[in-house]
Amino acid sequence: MSSHTEQHVKRRESSSPATGGDTRYYDALVRLMQWINQHRLRVVFLTSIWCAIAFSTFTFAQESVSVEALAEQVALQQGNLNVVFILVCATLVVFMNAGFGMLEVGMCRQKNAVNILSKNIIVFGLALLTYWAVGFGFMFGQGTSIIGLSGFFISGDSATYGLDPFPTGLPVTIFFLFQAAFAATSATIVSGAVAERIRFDAFLIFSVVNIAFYCISGKWSWGGGWLADLGFADFAGSTVVHSVGGWSALVGAIVLGARYGKYEGRLVKPIPGHNLSLATLGCLILWIGWFGFNPGSELAANENIAYIAITTNLAGAAGGTVATFVSWFKNKKPDLGMVINGILAGLVGITASCNQVSFVSAIIIGCISGCLVVFAIDFFDALRIDDPVGAISVHLCNGVWGTLAVGIFGANAGIQQFWIQLVGVVAYGSFTVVTGYLCWLALKLTLGIRVHDYEEIEGLDIHEHGQIAYAGFSMVDEAPSSLIETKL
Amino acid sequence: MSSHTEQHVKRRESSSPATGGDTRYYDALVRLMQWINQHRLRVVFLTSIWCAIAFSTFTFAQESVSVEALAEQVALQQGNLNVVFILVCATLVVFMNAGFGMLEVGMCRQKNAVNILSKNIIVFGLALLTYWAVGFGFMFGQGTSIIGLSGFFISGDSATYGLDPFPTGLPVTIFFLFQAAFAATSATIVSGAVAERIRFDAFLIFSVVNIAFYCISGKWSWGGGWLADLGFADFAGSTVVHSVGGWSALVGAIVLGARYGKYEGRLVKPIPGHNLSLATLGCLILWIGWFGFNPGSELAANENIAYIAITTNLAGAAGGTVATFVSWFKNKKPDLGMVINGILAGLVGITASCNQVSFVSAIIIGCISGCLVVFAIDFFDALRIDDPVGAISVHLCNGVWGTLAVGIFGANAGIQQFWIQLVGVVAYGSFTVVTGYLCWLALKLTLGIRVHDYEEIEGLDIHEHGQIAYAGFSMVDEAPSSLIETKL
Amino acid sequence: MSSHTEQHVKRRESSSPATGGDTRYYDALVRLMQWINQHRLRVVFLTSIWCAIAFSTFTFAQESVSVEALAEQVALQQGNLNVVFILVCATLVVFMNAGFGMLEVGMCRQKNAVNILSKNIIVFGLALLTYWAVGFGFMFGQGTSIIGLSGFFISGDSATYGLDPFPTGLPVTIFFLFQAAFAATSATIVSGAVAERIRFDAFLIFSVVNIAFYCISGKWSWGGGWLADLGFADFAGSTVVHSVGGWSALVGAIVLGARYGKYEGRLVKPIPGHNLSLATLGCLILWIGWFGFNPGSELAANENIAYIAITTNLAGAAGGTVATFVSWFKNKKPDLGMVINGILAGLVGITASCNQVSFVSAIIIGCISGCLVVFAIDFFDALRIDDPVGAISVHLCNGVWGTLAVGIFGANAGIQQFWIQLVGVVAYGSFTVVTGYLCWLALKLTLGIRVHDYEEIEGLDIHEHGQIAYAGFSMVDEAPSSLIETKL
Repeated sequence: MSSHTEQHVKRRESSSPATGGDTRYYDALVRLMQWINQHRLRVVFLTSIWCAIAFSTFTFAQESVSVEALAEQVALQQGNLNVVFILVCATLVVFMNAGFGMLEVGMCRQKNAVNILSKNIIVFGLALLTYWAVGFGFMFGQGTSIIGLSGFFISGDSATYGLDPFPTGLPVTIFFLFQAAFAATSATIVSGAVAERIRFDAFLIFSVVNIAFYCISGKWSWGGGWLADLGFADFAGSTVVHSVGGWSALVGAIVLGARYGKYEGRLVKPIPGHNLSLATLGCLILWIGWFGFNPGSELAANENIAYIAITTNLAGAAGGTVATFVSWFKNKKPDLGMVINGILAGLVGITASCNQVSFVSAIIIGCISGCLVVFAIDFFDALRIDDPVGAISVHLCNGVWGTLAVGIFGANAGIQQFWIQLVGVVAYGSFTVVTGYLCWLALKLTLGIRVHDYEEIEGLDIHEHGQIAYAGFSMVDEAPSSLIETKL
Repeated sequence: MSSHTEQHVKRRESSSPATGGDTRYYDALVRLMQWINQHRLRVVFLTSIWCAIAFSTFTFAQESVSVEALAEQVALQQGNLNVVFILVCATLVVFMNAGFGMLEVGMCRQKNAVNILSKNIIVFGLALLTYWAVGFGFMFGQGTSIIGLSGFFISGDSATYGLDPFPTGLPVTIFFLFQAAFAATSATIVSGAVAERIRFDAFLIFSVVNIAFYCISGKWSWGGGWLADLGFADFAGSTVVHSVGGWSALVGAIVLGARYGKYEGRLVKPIPGHNLSLATLGCLILWIGWFGFNPGSELAANENIAYIAITTNLAGAAGGTVATFVSWFKNKKPDLGMVINGILAGLVGITASCNQVSFVSAIIIGCISGCLVVFAIDFFDALRIDDPVGAISVHLCNGVWGTLAVGIFGANAGIQQFWIQLVGVVAYGSFTVVTGYLCWLALKLTLGIRVHDYEEIEGLDIHEHGQIAYAGFSMVDEAPSSLIETKL
Repeated sequence: MSSHTEQHVKRRESSSPATGGDTRYYDALVRLMQWINQHRLRVVFLTSIWCAIAFSTFTFAQESVSVEALAEQVALQQGNLNVVFILVCATLVVFMNAGFGMLEVGMCRQKNAVNILSKNIIVFGLALLTYWAVGFGFMFGQGTSIIGLSGFFISGDSATYGLDPFPTGLPVTIFFLFQAAFAATSATIVSGAVAERIRFDAFLIFSVVNIAFYCISGKWSWGGGWLADLGFADFAGSTVVHSVGGWSALVGAIVLGARYGKYEGRLVKPIPGHNLSLATLGCLILWIGWFGFNPGSELAANENIAYIAITTNLAGAAGGTVATFVSWFKNKKPDLGMVINGILAGLVGITASCNQVSFVSAIIIGCISGCLVVFAIDFFDALRIDDPVGAISVHLCNGVWGTLAVGIFGANAGIQQFWIQLVGVVAYGSFTVVTGYLCWLALKLTLGIRVHDYEEIEGLDIHEHGQIAYAGFSMVDEAPSSLIETKL
């Protein structure tokens, strides 16, 4: 067949003299065909193999685009889910301001209600703006391991705050919102301990400065600072938020002194709150707020958040139950204030370890917290440190206890972890006490921090705000005439 | 070419006498090459086919790993979404305790406020611990079809509670949290009906025992027990939660007797609540709580939850509207208490069928609930059963009505389904009445369940708790001097 | 080999005479085998290529089914996530009714508390039923560009309301629930401005009619009507919800006239609220409600919701802070009412532009809102327009300001966008003022809209409802005897 083709080609060539100039291409083609003919088996073999690879690769390429796009979509959706979850948690933590506000106003006297409400509500606004301007940068900005020095006034860049880019990491915005709510909470803790005698302007200034210090010390543990490197564990802030707030409250209560008439000679006079309905509402708002506070600190929507919600809930229940029965046994009557403070004590106590202790450990931590808070309130009264709402007993004592409990019940429990926890507690305590004291002292020496005695006696509402909380509220002994008796 | 190769091989063999010992391998190779040469076409064919299969399979293998991993990730994310959703719902249901607390305290008298608040808040804690210890095991542990007998003190094993493993099923933790909040709600229903005259300690003991019985009967329907097998349908607990709570409340109110001065001869004296602002707040908190209660009972985040939220909302709106106009027509004035109870009645009524009735049916169910509650309150007054907050009228009457409504408006509506629903209602009713009565009776015969008359008249707050809810609350008729008139 | 085969075949044929009738099939087979033998190389080649294609295609087919199913599952999950997110947001917006209720009741007098609470709670129910029957159809039904005319009584068809089918779009149900909550909010705004003097029945009728008009005008912008076509931007309702509510409130306050004793000659007498604790709680509930109101208006769960939450939060904080300091400077005392109204003003102001302005712009918008509200309250007092809770200053002034701010700070800021925004503001304003006025007038001429003077003076609670909000609430000057002093 080979020679036959050659003849055919030659014949065609000679009959086409006009195309004589193209013969070299024609010759090359002929030689190629001859070569293919000689190696036809090899050609078939190689072509087949090539096709097998090519079609498979083509299929792979087709697929891999689609699967990759889908994988991206899946990752984006987990990111979206994280955003939704943290937004819900941030909402709950913001709602805690209502909880603290109602708790504090209810446990204080009617004549100071406007002052307490004003403090709580405006401090949240100021805290947010301060946190936006400098706090977030101090706490999560990159820099040294003791203070963040970048990312002020929020930059959109995730890396500035040690976050992975969305969707792997949280968007800066939602992380900011969640952390800002925490910062405002820390300020609100102080509010309760210094209530009913502090100047409104002094408290606002203190709160703004205090948030800056809170953020600096927050860097140490949550911003990847030196305590984090050491292995200090405080999952949702028994120390970073609560004991820090508690130390500021303690220093404030000491520097301010007790309320007029609280301690007379060797007598401790109870000054009951004017609205325990609102105080109880505040406690229940705080309880659900903790479902944002603790599970939200996981910073991602996964199975763990359910576990954290349970340890949190069990510790709160245990704290409330134990505080109720201990105070019942001690004072012969079950005290509503102790039920409330016991619940909060249990919730503060579990905050550091809620992600890593067993359910039974959570209950034990809560029980100890509930017991602790009852005796702590007596203890501070014995020291003549006047804390109208028990904030120091709840947040400081149980914040410290909860932090140490990580070393006792946590995943790495042991003497080493316990010492690390103790180092953290001491570091936060000494820093906060020193900076807090300097801040209170500076305010005392300049603006003054305490209202005049006559203002305190007549009430801060009239003198600081020119308002009263329950204007025109009148006693109603009789039911209106329309509420007549029904005859059956 | 064949013979040429053979000669070449032989020549090579003879020129390498040193390797004479290996000739058998060499011979085998030669024979293989000869065989290949003879069957070269078959070899090419089979190799090509093999390659086509191999490369495709390789591609498939490559891909299938990636797609499978992605599918796992997708399933995990739906699991995570379910967890987030149920955590939000559980939070809302926990918040219902604040709703019931504010509703009850607002509808009762000032002198019993501390008692009511203490009851509501501590019962939630006790309920949670009881549910953790035994309740969850009774209700969802495997065992007989009338009581669960495993999984006490929470085991992490999903199968123990009839759950698929995460992520297909919910984590045990979040399922526990959601169900525990329901159990506490059931206890809170009783609280309202026995308020203002029950001993604090007796109520705590009753609540703990009551939760155990609630869990046993809960098993019948929700834990895969005998009523579930029968086809009894109670989606979110018109009977399992509300009518059970209502029956306990009814028995309690009967055993306790009416409040001092409520019924005198043939007269029914109204005893109005001391804080309708808080009662209204409680109602609105309960309204949003139902957005967790009903949609959350779907136990998964899917399209149905939106449907359930609408039926729930429409029934609540219809109940409130009808109760308002019926009581307006009946008493010539629109009564705030009736608006509140009408809304709650509508919400209780739709609870059993919220996942399966049309929107129009939901409105009809709500309208009937709103009408029912107005007449039920008069009915129980006529029977001299004193229920300070109308809990029996709301939860018992509408719980029963809502359960039967499944047989009238539900997906399988018909005489058969109606009878099954009736069997469920009777079973739950008789069990709860008998166990509740025995429990109240045992308490009455031992501890006593009712406070002394003088305690009731002077208020439970002082005698049971040594506290008052609004200490130092003083009437303020005049605005403070600083609130001067402004001259334009 | 060919001839050998032929012989074998022939021999087989001759030895099987019984099968002689089948020879034509046998011949065809022989011819096929001969053809294959002649073209064996081509057969091998084509078969190999065919196999390569076939196996790849098979793999592709295998895969593509699985990946497609997975892609559907992924899309469904994003849909589920959207549903969960919007359900949470709708819950928060529904909770805003509690916020408005507490704010209004707290800022008004004790004697009208039951009336205010009743109004707020029943209007939500009526609004929901009205929105279900006609409102949703007016607002999102397809029809003309000025009014929707289909989809009354909710149809399940997404297209009726301009939605993509689930899971791409939201289910009709959850979209309805979210929008219904918005409609009820609009009605509640009016409630505050006309409080303490309006007839209960007149207000209910006005609210129902008002919602219908709200829905018609809502169509223009959110339902794809003529303002949407024009490029009018109002993301979450500074105008569609707030200024519309504000205009109705303004017309209502003018038509009704001021409360008895508010303006005497040239004097403006302050009428302080009776419960600022509840008013503050209301403000904080509204604050978290806005986390549903604004982010939820994105109508999907994605990264933007975090951004929106931040702009919202910063504007609220800025508004509260500026209003506090401006009123402090102006009146020498920090006024709690101004803190509250400043926060709400900032939140209303950012509502139109929360999805498209920078953080700094959000703070500027909030600051201007906070300043605006302080002077607006004085301005309306100077005009003798009596607005008990400042609703007109908060919702109307800042609704308008927020809408115009889109033209100043928004993504398409410029003179053109500003004019478009102004057109929208004027269109909504004139429509609402005209329809609102006609509605109030019709009510005034028929039923009457204002209670008698003696009813206003003695309180609407007794005369309209036959109830009082704080029955039997008694002054308690002394602590109970059990609260004895403790000796240390």
